Amino acid sequence: MSRSSKVSITPKEQSKFVNRVEGLFSPEQFKLSNEDREHWGQDWTRLFEVAPLAVVFPNCINQVVELVRLANAYDYKLVPSGGRTGLSGGCVASNGEVVVSFDRMNQILEFNPVDRLVHCQAGVVTAQLQQYAMEQGLFYPVDFASSGSSQIGGNIATNAGGIRVIRYGLTRDWVSGMTVVTGNGEVVSANKGLVKNATGYDLRHLFVGSEGTLGFVVEAQMKLCAPPELQRVMIACVSSLQDLLSILQCFQKTLELSAFEFFSDLAMSKVLGHRGIDRPLSTVSKYYALLEYDESMTEVATQAFSVCVNHGWITDGILSQSISQSKRLWEIRDGITESIARFTPYKNDISVRISEVPGFLDDVEGIVKDHYPDLEVCWFGHIGDGNLHLNILKPQNVGISEFEKRCRKINHLLFERIRRRGGSISAEHGVGLLKRDFLSYSRSQSEIETMRAIKEVFDRNGIMNPGKVF
Amino acid sequence: MSRSSKVSITPKEQSKFVNRVEGLFSPEQFKLSNEDREHWGQDWTRLFEVAPLAVVFPNCINQVVELVRLANAYDYKLVPSGGRTGLSGGCVASNGEVVVSFDRMNQILEFNPVDRLVHCQAGVVTAQLQQYAMEQGLFYPVDFASSGSSQIGGNIATNAGGIRVIRYGLTRDWVSGMTVVTGNGEVVSANKGLVKNATGYDLRHLFVGSEGTLGFVVEAQMKLCAPPELQRVMIACVSSLQDLLSILQCFQKTLELSAFEFFSDLAMSKVLGHRGIDRPLSTVSKYYALLEYDESMTEVATQAFSVCVNHGWITDGILSQSISQSKRLWEIRDGITESIARFTPYKNDISVRISEVPGFLDDVEGIVKDHYPDLEVCWFGHIGDGNLHLNILKPQNVGISEFEKRCRKINHLLFERIRRRGGSISAEHGVGLLKRDFLSYSRSQSEIETMRAIKEVFDRNGIMNPGKVF
Repeated sequence: MSRSSKVSITPKEQSKFVNRVEGLFSPEQFKLSNEDREHWGQDWTRLFEVAPLAVVFPNCINQVVELVRLANAYDYKLVPSGGRTGLSGGCVASNGEVVVSFDRMNQILEFNPVDRLVHCQAGVVTAQLQQYAMEQGLFYPVDFASSGSSQIGGNIATNAGGIRVIRYGLTRDWVSGMTVVTGNGEVVSANKGLVKNATGYDLRHLFVGSEGTLGFVVEAQMKLCAPPELQRVMIACVSSLQDLLSILQCFQKTLELSAFEFFSDLAMSKVLGHRGIDRPLSTVSKYYALLEYDESMTEVATQAFSVCVNHGWITDGILSQSISQSKRLWEIRDGITESIARFTPYKNDISVRISEVPGFLDDVEGIVKDHYPDLEVCWFGHIGDGNLHLNILKPQNVGISEFEKRCRKINHLLFERIRRRGGSISAEHGVGLLKRDFLSYSRSQSEIETMRAIKEVFDRNGIMNPGKVF
Repeated sequence: MSRSSKVSITPKEQSKFVNRVEGLFSPEQFKLSNEDREHWGQDWTRLFEVAPLAVVFPNCINQVVELVRLANAYDYKLVPSGGRTGLSGGCVASNGEVVVSFDRMNQILEFNPVDRLVHCQAGVVTAQLQQYAMEQGLFYPVDFASSGSSQIGGNIATNAGGIRVIRYGLTRDWVSGMTVVTGNGEVVSANKGLVKNATGYDLRHLFVGSEGTLGFVVEAQMKLCAPPELQRVMIACVSSLQDLLSILQCFQKTLELSAFEFFSDLAMSKVLGHRGIDRPLSTVSKYYALLEYDESMTEVATQAFSVCVNHGWITDGILSQSISQSKRLWEIRDGITESIARFTPYKNDISVRISEVPGFLDDVEGIVKDHYPDLEVCWFGHIGDGNLHLNILKPQNVGISEFEKRCRKINHLLFERIRRRGGSISAEHGVGLLKRDFLSYSRSQSEIETMRAIKEVFDRNGIMNPGKVF
């Protein structure tokens, strides 16, 4: 195990630090075995070395504060760990850090039906909050593939988005208050669940999306809302991306969409093949749009559909007639990632402004065609908010390391196009380790220096999740 | 005219600075007369000395950058000025500062119907944006009494809220990108109109609500949405604040409210007397709630109304049958401020969590009754988001300065109650000069120090709007 800290630590000092840390926790809250360090030291990426010093499981804010103080005193680094479902290495511990898991701070502390606020510990799992909301006759709307494992603290740290951002926004929009233990060991209670609070800088929004580089989110007050009606789903055949945008505009004129997803025919074919299911429509099209909306708007949606057909934007479509059919249509969109996993895809989670999507997709297909004509590009994503998941599939006859080398070359070409179009090299997965060296394609040098200076305000010794983001 | 800068400036240096500033601008962009300095150096508060050095009217970002560089070089201070409708002295220039007005940067630069984004200069007036949105068949939903004069830059600097926050949120929720000239003279383009962007700290949200202490918001990309249906308005008679919260919960179960306002009978009486209009209902009640919702939900609202009547939460009510009747009902709520103006009210804009409202109102009425039994308290506000406007009316037989002295004593008692209930001493008007000395009732010492440190990152010489917020 190596440590990259500038201060050289002797084995004796290290063992003193480890003893002090151990002293803060009960035996079941402190893990040292290789297996445990491996398990809690990584996320869903499998690209980085995993080598933490130890894993701890605080059960209260005080233990977090004490640990942060020790880490500052001994110049050890700390890495926050939630559900470890991240896709950018944001909670990977590669350098002898202490991993701080919130698995034992997983309680819902309070609920107030008038305020519609749930006071959660950081380790509450997203699905647990969704379920709790349902039991109160309410709804927690932020939802994504990893909601069964991801934790609220991690969602806040990455500003998690997902499939219903077009209607409900991102995690940021549902945090009404939070308690953070900063890298300096101070406890900050930001906003306290207020709707209106004009008393200076809103630190809450600085912590949201900071990927654990400023401090630990230890508690949060999450908003709930009224549950939506039953939803209807439509899949439409679309020949061009310009038409896709015309469809979006046409529908948004008369109804509120809950989702507006898209995928290419290649993506559709992979899912159908993988799951052994039939095509939902006989028409084969270059792209498909999946639209979701309230059942009471079915008539309005059918009218918008007709307008789109008359304009030639939609060439064919299918509308769910039942809950089970809605599920089957969603299955096609949801099944894409799994169905292409065996092609070891090179994944990129990127965004541009919605109106830039067609031009940007052309750019990227051009790059791939010019430089790598043998590679297949599988597009899908949350096009209603400009978020695209680019997947380049590995040809069977190319080795993994050769494939990754070629894809890394695409990175720079791709990110340069994103820069020119004012887009983001990470739409919703975060920067972590994966995109760190490319950050300047989306943020100016001055912004990056500003971020570093802000980090110093909260974490003067740089003990919080070092090497992540910048 | 006095200057409070630590560096002592000789008249010769001052005149050199003024000459340099004058050199940046055309004659009509530079004003020095007493009348102009008085006009552009103040906001809607009339409590503070107004004594700027000069007023400038940049017409482009470059002029702002050059001015900031000069101010840094000569250690002069700058005060941003939008529509000057603020109620906390946030843009008052009292100390020989240069006032920077955005009146000449009032253009809508671009609109994209797919992205539903309007790219505005900072000096675009709120009503101008609302009107522009309407012309595109869309809607800008943030609305408040001063929308005819307030500017987008100022709205962002104070995170303006208003009457439809319960449905549409605050200005913060409608800013998709912004360009800021920081106090260090750097141009930061934050977020660039993206829906999803997970590339490090979201500086946009740090500038929102920073009251011009970090830099000048010079441009913004504002989101628009689909226009709402025609709205219906209901006024309900309510005997207690607990009942008011039960009504809120009952309605929110089945429909989305566009507004949920309240006022006391004293407030109602003042409006009726002032405008010479009849009571909209024969029943006299301690409180009234004003509810607004989509016309298509009238039946659902009528059902909720019946449920509330059956529970005894509502004792009487009136439902608008036409647009003109809706306007008349709103007039009662909108007319309160004007109708009590002649009582020189001591105003406080405060908030607590919605569930804390009844207890908090009891607290405050207790304080006033115990200490100042001769004073009348007039309550109204956006109770759907916990935002209360407390107005203590000056008795005719008490002089203004004596009245203000007594009210200042109430401040500490009031703010201590807010502190205990985790509320905010400024819900939506900002801290400015008015609440600066009370900030610690809502923010911890550590938070205030953190804010100071963040200010230093963006404005190392402290030239931006000094003395405001903290």
